[in-house]
Amino acid sequence: MTSRIPVTVLGATGVVGQRFVARLARHPLFELAHLAASERSAGRRYRDACAWRVTGAEPYGGLGERVLAPCDPAEAAGRIVFSALDADVARELEPEFARAGALVFSNASAWRMEPDVALLVPEVNPDHLELVAVQRARRQWKGAIVCNPNCTTAVLALALAPLHQAFGVQAVSMASLQATSGAGYPGVASLDILSNAIPFIRGEEEKVEAEANKLLGSLAGEVVRPAGFPVSAACHRVAVLDGHLLAVSVRLAGEPGPEAVREALEGWRGEPQRLGLPSAPPRPILVHELEDRPQPRLDVEALGGMAVHVGRVRPCPVLGVRFSALGHNLERGAAGGSVLNAELAQARGLV
Amino acid sequence: MTSRIPVTVLGATGVVGQRFVARLARHPLFELAHLAASERSAGRRYRDACAWRVTGAEPYGGLGERVLAPCDPAEAAGRIVFSALDADVARELEPEFARAGALVFSNASAWRMEPDVALLVPEVNPDHLELVAVQRARRQWKGAIVCNPNCTTAVLALALAPLHQAFGVQAVSMASLQATSGAGYPGVASLDILSNAIPFIRGEEEKVEAEANKLLGSLAGEVVRPAGFPVSAACHRVAVLDGHLLAVSVRLAGEPGPEAVREALEGWRGEPQRLGLPSAPPRPILVHELEDRPQPRLDVEALGGMAVHVGRVRPCPVLGVRFSALGHNLERGAAGGSVLNAELAQARGLV
Amino acid sequence: MTSRIPVTVLGATGVVGQRFVARLARHPLFELAHLAASERSAGRRYRDACAWRVTGAEPYGGLGERVLAPCDPAEAAGRIVFSALDADVARELEPEFARAGALVFSNASAWRMEPDVALLVPEVNPDHLELVAVQRARRQWKGAIVCNPNCTTAVLALALAPLHQAFGVQAVSMASLQATSGAGYPGVASLDILSNAIPFIRGEEEKVEAEANKLLGSLAGEVVRPAGFPVSAACHRVAVLDGHLLAVSVRLAGEPGPEAVREALEGWRGEPQRLGLPSAPPRPILVHELEDRPQPRLDVEALGGMAVHVGRVRPCPVLGVRFSALGHNLERGAAGGSVLNAELAQARGLV
Amino acid sequence: MTSRIPVTVLGATGVVGQRFVARLARHPLFELAHLAASERSAGRRYRDACAWRVTGAEPYGGLGERVLAPCDPAEAAGRIVFSALDADVARELEPEFARAGALVFSNASAWRMEPDVALLVPEVNPDHLELVAVQRARRQWKGAIVCNPNCTTAVLALALAPLHQAFGVQAVSMASLQATSGAGYPGVASLDILSNAIPFIRGEEEKVEAEANKLLGSLAGEVVRPAGFPVSAACHRVAVLDGHLLAVSVRLAGEPGPEAVREALEGWRGEPQRLGLPSAPPRPILVHELEDRPQPRLDVEALGGMAVHVGRVRPCPVLGVRFSALGHNLERGAAGGSVLNAELAQARGLV
Repeated sequence: MTSRIPVTVLGATGVVGQRFVARLARHPLFELAHLAASERSAGRRYRDACAWRVTGAEPYGGLGERVLAPCDPAEAAGRIVFSALDADVARELEPEFARAGALVFSNASAWRMEPDVALLVPEVNPDHLELVAVQRARRQWKGAIVCNPNCTTAVLALALAPLHQAFGVQAVSMASLQATSGAGYPGVASLDILSNAIPFIRGEEEKVEAEANKLLGSLAGEVVRPAGFPVSAACHRVAVLDGHLLAVSVRLAGEPGPEAVREALEGWRGEPQRLGLPSAPPRPILVHELEDRPQPRLDVEALGGMAVHVGRVRPCPVLGVRFSALGHNLERGAAGGSVLNAELAQARGLV
Repeated sequence: MTSRIPVTVLGATGVVGQRFVARLARHPLFELAHLAASERSAGRRYRDACAWRVTGAEPYGGLGERVLAPCDPAEAAGRIVFSALDADVARELEPEFARAGALVFSNASAWRMEPDVALLVPEVNPDHLELVAVQRARRQWKGAIVCNPNCTTAVLALALAPLHQAFGVQAVSMASLQATSGAGYPGVASLDILSNAIPFIRGEEEKVEAEANKLLGSLAGEVVRPAGFPVSAACHRVAVLDGHLLAVSVRLAGEPGPEAVREALEGWRGEPQRLGLPSAPPRPILVHELEDRPQPRLDVEALGGMAVHVGRVRPCPVLGVRFSALGHNLERGAAGGSVLNAELAQARGLV
Repeated sequence: MTSRIPVTVLGATGVVGQRFVARLARHPLFELAHLAASERSAGRRYRDACAWRVTGAEPYGGLGERVLAPCDPAEAAGRIVFSALDADVARELEPEFARAGALVFSNASAWRMEPDVALLVPEVNPDHLELVAVQRARRQWKGAIVCNPNCTTAVLALALAPLHQAFGVQAVSMASLQATSGAGYPGVASLDILSNAIPFIRGEEEKVEAEANKLLGSLAGEVVRPAGFPVSAACHRVAVLDGHLLAVSVRLAGEPGPEAVREALEGWRGEPQRLGLPSAPPRPILVHELEDRPQPRLDVEALGGMAVHVGRVRPCPVLGVRFSALGHNLERGAAGGSVLNAELAQARGLV
Repeated sequence: MTSRIPVTVLGATGVVGQRFVARLARHPLFELAHLAASERSAGRRYRDACAWRVTGAEPYGGLGERVLAPCDPAEAAGRIVFSALDADVARELEPEFARAGALVFSNASAWRMEPDVALLVPEVNPDHLELVAVQRARRQWKGAIVCNPNCTTAVLALALAPLHQAFGVQAVSMASLQATSGAGYPGVASLDILSNAIPFIRGEEEKVEAEANKLLGSLAGEVVRPAGFPVSAACHRVAVLDGHLLAVSVRLAGEPGPEAVREALEGWRGEPQRLGLPSAPPRPILVHELEDRPQPRLDVEALGGMAVHVGRVRPCPVLGVRFSALGHNLERGAAGGSVLNAELAQARGLV
């Protein structure tokens, strides 16, 4: 434990930032050296700057008395930086930390689609981490930026990856029912969501369609060749606290039946499982048998929110096969995903 | 008003039954002669047998003192019968009323897919009413049964009909976010739906897929030839009181763009509009411009719940075009739909 | 109709402002001359500046194309001004309109407790309108400011007034379950209220305790002598869209039983009922018999949201009698209350 | 571990029964020997008989394959029996188990107010356990029945006990906001609670008023002398999954101020804390400083749901002092409370 790597959380007061703190409070590899926040909060005690919202976890990760640093590499210089910043702030600040030598694991959308930035889900495309070397060379940064995808894409990509590897994905149609925590705090107004559903989340459908193709794409020299299949996403906000539920239809090469699809999902393991990374769930995908599962409230907290739940695998009269998928937008889709990315980077000697 | 047609509501205490009563309390053509309910409620005053749940309407349609009749043609014989019975009860009782001479407008699934029963949405397939004569001849009933579709199908079929007429529908992929009132009362348990979404509604997907094809099918002699396009439905229950919201993707012949689709939807009128039926909305489909509409809570009560709202018409990378559709599951999808069916039947001289 | 009084709504885009517009769109005495809003919205069309949230009413009161004025007496000078401004803005702007000659009916807390400002619920204390003359004399304003109370107080005061008149209130203990619309838009974050309740609303308890005493107080010359009984309020926010539900215990002089209390509530009428003011409900208080009523969702929209619902009148082992009370926070507790105040002022020749 | 006491759970499939199983799956003193359920479920595997609803716990306590026994002492004879049966069933079956020699810890209301049955909260009235001997003598049972109070009463009594001991409670006025899980499954219909609150829970107010007096009463020979202060309860159901929130006003002898009350609550410990019972929280009462706490969603799961949270201690203009209290209805108010009762009985040598 003496040699744990000092890490920084940027944006520690928000809903994703708190999840980072909860995860890192007792991490075997990483030590929470710096909690950083916006100017409004910097200088205040963590417990005074926000209300703790991670139920079932020690309040403030036991660091409620810690004074928040500003988001400045001079004052919050972890060797690893976990960023829960908003996109516009991230675009400016994350490079500063990368330039200062930190490996930045970003939850923001700002840098995801840059050609020399790895958009990473460790089970899906671990080799894309090789872009770190490309990025360092190109940008002359000592550190680097590694991104995890949009929360919806993370869930979708994990459910698609085994099918892409086993059969080849040719087309995807997806409708999402997304939790309000995905919009941060204060985020969605109660007047907008009580007894309501909203068929629009700004920018979300475009992100899903682009990021899924980058994630499932293949690294060809110094660039990622997108997977190239069309993705149609219809994103909805619903009155759920945590957990994004997706209805997915997919056209697969060879037209495998539901049973073959179920087996491909259930048997699949990735590099995090092989390496036994601390935040990796034993299995990335849990296939449910019950006809009315997965459900956000009953299933999303299983395995620390790091598994993707798949249920109702059945034929689709239009595309061939369809199923429901569920994942934790704040864990696998945000903080947990970033931490797993960092664990993979550490295992590969990049830190 | 003196010659209004006496009508019966079967199952007047349930959520659909109450909507029937609210609609018929001041109807220009129909007069509420009988309120009937299950044996448990028959003989009690309407106001004592259930809690009134139609907000914004006169409690109990002003008939709170009315004593409930049993569901028996001998005691509740309207010339028109509106049935809000459960499917298993409907299968037995509705034929008794039809045999006794009533034109039964049923909201139940029991008889919908019978070849000689019209499954009717007046704007979509008014000519299917010709099956009434077929049914009477075949079954030797003085009356007849006419069905309206499942609440989700009603919304979907209305949104598809203009496109089928203008272009030809080739394939449909749909995910629904359905209100809990669609499951009746008590229906969905609060522990199942607070901060949750359920990706399963028993029998719903099969109904949508079959009924949409019958509704959009064509009458060929004495049978309906199904439309023949594949429909993929993924049905979800969400924490919404009223209003089913659908994410629809569709492949159309000729691959029209979003603008052509929007025009086809907006300009479309049906026979109820041409005839000026009392329950017909001025336009069956309202196309929204705002990027985050339609929403159940903000839109579903417009025009008495009889319009279908369409928004976000945009290209679909997989099937060609996609949009959101919203309709009132208890009105256009149930009581209002049945009443409109009866108005059409009356206009055509079938009553 | 030709001589309707031109009126202005300040803050027309908010949840209370929209209720004003919905109420005034077809008012027999008042004509909506000006819709005014903050600088951010002024100059835009009403329909572009906000999403319409009053379900069951014509969108934007039919004035969606109207261009919003700034909140400036030079550009939005109605003879009557309805203010839905926030307290801090109201403190500055409402006097400007009063100085310019308008009778300002304010929904804000800014001026409520000023000694020369009438805090008015027309059924409760119509004579307090005499403060208008006091205020004009003292402040040299051509117009004046008249306030309606906090939404919770409005409901409580209406339920207490008949009891105070019939018996004399000696002490009140009240716990509230308040709708999120009471906090405006965006107001309460969904992450704060989904599957949650909050036992705190800033400033609310103090307002209830002070305002109830002013409302039920008596006008003595140029000042209001507070009623003088202690009020204990415990205010909660709950996951309800519209309607504040109160659990009230009260100690009354003479210790009347529940039946006497019920009669006093049911038989009570006020000046708005005697005058037949357009927005007055036929009875200010509806006493429910059913053991589980009133409930916000089932009852709050009755009579345009202008009635107070009382139920479960029963003995209180501590204070003597207790009951549940429910009222519409945006109607009787805000827009409707202000409009009724203006109608009373007009009837009394103050406009 | 080899000598753990074999225990039975009656009603293992319900929301309280599942909590029992989750608590007992790894209990240091007790071993889950029998899971029993109604005839409808007996003979089925636990995982097939119900959906597991305890989030954050191992599904089915790891006993999903266990076959459910009927609620019959001949087939499910633990030395300790935890009963989550409904009151009417409990009234018949619990004596059968007591007669057969089991110490029955009941969560049902059936036997609570019997003079020779201990109504027990271990921190509040541990000496009432002496009624076990009285009961055995009087009824000639080898075992006995020990009850925990109604879920709301458990929370209230824990908050009052330190004040009763330190000052003496003279009167209590309480309004509750109760979670839907308190009504079991399916329990509250979603149509009743979405965007709603219900000011009535059958029998609840009477239970609170009577049980609080028995709990805080004193054992005098073979009977409990009730505490004798009046309690006024107004109980509401709200859209919260878990956690009952109470607004409490109390009149105390000597009229102590809020600070003295806060100290009395914070410093208080009971016998379970002194004995270090496995399910006892380190402190029975957590006093919150933040002005808007406690809140069900943020606080109720702390310390395994066994603490009572108190916040907003402040003067009450009517009774002297008031505060908010929160407790977990399924844990401290049901399963956890029963298990703690059993631990106390075991420590006292009664098992």
